[in-house]
Amino acid sequence: MTYNDKKVSIAVIRRLPRYYRYLGELLKNDVTRISSKELSERMGVTASQIRQDLNCFGGFGQQGYGYNVEYLYKEIGNILGLYNGYTTIMIGAGHLGHALANHSSFEKRGFKLIGIFDIDKEVIGKQIRGITVMDMKELDSFVKTHKPDIAILAIPKESVPEVAQALVDLGVKGLWNFSYIDLHLSGDVAIENVHLSDSLMTLSYKITQKQYKNKNKEML
Amino acid sequence: MTYNDKKVSIAVIRRLPRYYRYLGELLKNDVTRISSKELSERMGVTASQIRQDLNCFGGFGQQGYGYNVEYLYKEIGNILGLYNGYTTIMIGAGHLGHALANHSSFEKRGFKLIGIFDIDKEVIGKQIRGITVMDMKELDSFVKTHKPDIAILAIPKESVPEVAQALVDLGVKGLWNFSYIDLHLSGDVAIENVHLSDSLMTLSYKITQKQYKNKNKEML
Repeated sequence: MTYNDKKVSIAVIRRLPRYYRYLGELLKNDVTRISSKELSERMGVTASQIRQDLNCFGGFGQQGYGYNVEYLYKEIGNILGLYNGYTTIMIGAGHLGHALANHSSFEKRGFKLIGIFDIDKEVIGKQIRGITVMDMKELDSFVKTHKPDIAILAIPKESVPEVAQALVDLGVKGLWNFSYIDLHLSGDVAIENVHLSDSLMTLSYKITQKQYKNKNKEML
Repeated sequence: MTYNDKKVSIAVIRRLPRYYRYLGELLKNDVTRISSKELSERMGVTASQIRQDLNCFGGFGQQGYGYNVEYLYKEIGNILGLYNGYTTIMIGAGHLGHALANHSSFEKRGFKLIGIFDIDKEVIGKQIRGITVMDMKELDSFVKTHKPDIAILAIPKESVPEVAQALVDLGVKGLWNFSYIDLHLSGDVAIENVHLSDSLMTLSYKITQKQYKNKNKEML
């Protein structure tokens, strides 16, 4: 494969998980092949966008045949690293940590949760999805022993910079950050910041546009 | 303003909340004006991308001056509908509903939570951020009286289609859907589906790329 050598834009990358989800749905419904036109109609993007995006990785379609759904699904999963068996730990077992730990779709995507940590004595020792919440004091030795790939940060933002740097120093490869602060860390680590309010603002835009259009219709 | 008449691509729309966040940070740090070059360096996008994006709405910069931070911040907020005083209700007061209700950034963006609903007798009557959790049985009359703009769906996916359609029939304008199923509803409603695992898959991609690059370096 040669796709790793090319610089692929982050906009394309961000569309890959969506392709993966849609193809997974098709597979579930026993669809074995699909044209870029059909796929584009389902996903609400243009067919040429799909072709362009997939061409970044060498292209997977055959003229006149379309895409083999299972093959494309697996290739995209491979590009996304979903078959690498990445393990995760959860930092914070409050409501957000709880909700995320209980989320079945992450394991379905190949991410295995192997540890949960908190500082709250009330929560330490309790079980979430069969995993006993550990004291943050045990984090250091746990990470050294089990070498998790990803840490999910579901703790108050004040605590994040220090904990994040410690995790990077311990060799964690990726941080999934829910704390709403941008992290600037030394060391080789991949970071994905989740900004839920971005999605709410997008919804707000859509509502505003709808209201504007409805108003215009009334005026015609 | 004429921006409402133009068809702006969803990719541009999805970048607006990010501009808004960055400009808000600049304002907090008393930065009053900024060039598209500086803004682009901070945000990690190209200056021409920023100019193109903002030109979709008429453009806000002056040659040789750059952008007036406060003006641009307010204009983008206006485009996003953040000053429309949208009200929200939370459907579901489990861990996710709790985490979202406690999230201060939504109110900071202008969204006011006015009601929380659940079917669980253990939770009904309890307070979250000063709001008493109501019985789902009261939803109908509450929505008719208070006319919330947005419903946040933090309930198990089995319950979502029925509840969502009921909310739309009651006149709710937007659904913020955390249930991981795509909604197909009749009626005029804006929908924003949150797929957290997309973000985790993007992180997985970044980690995979880093490892591939590091391996290549070793081989040189």
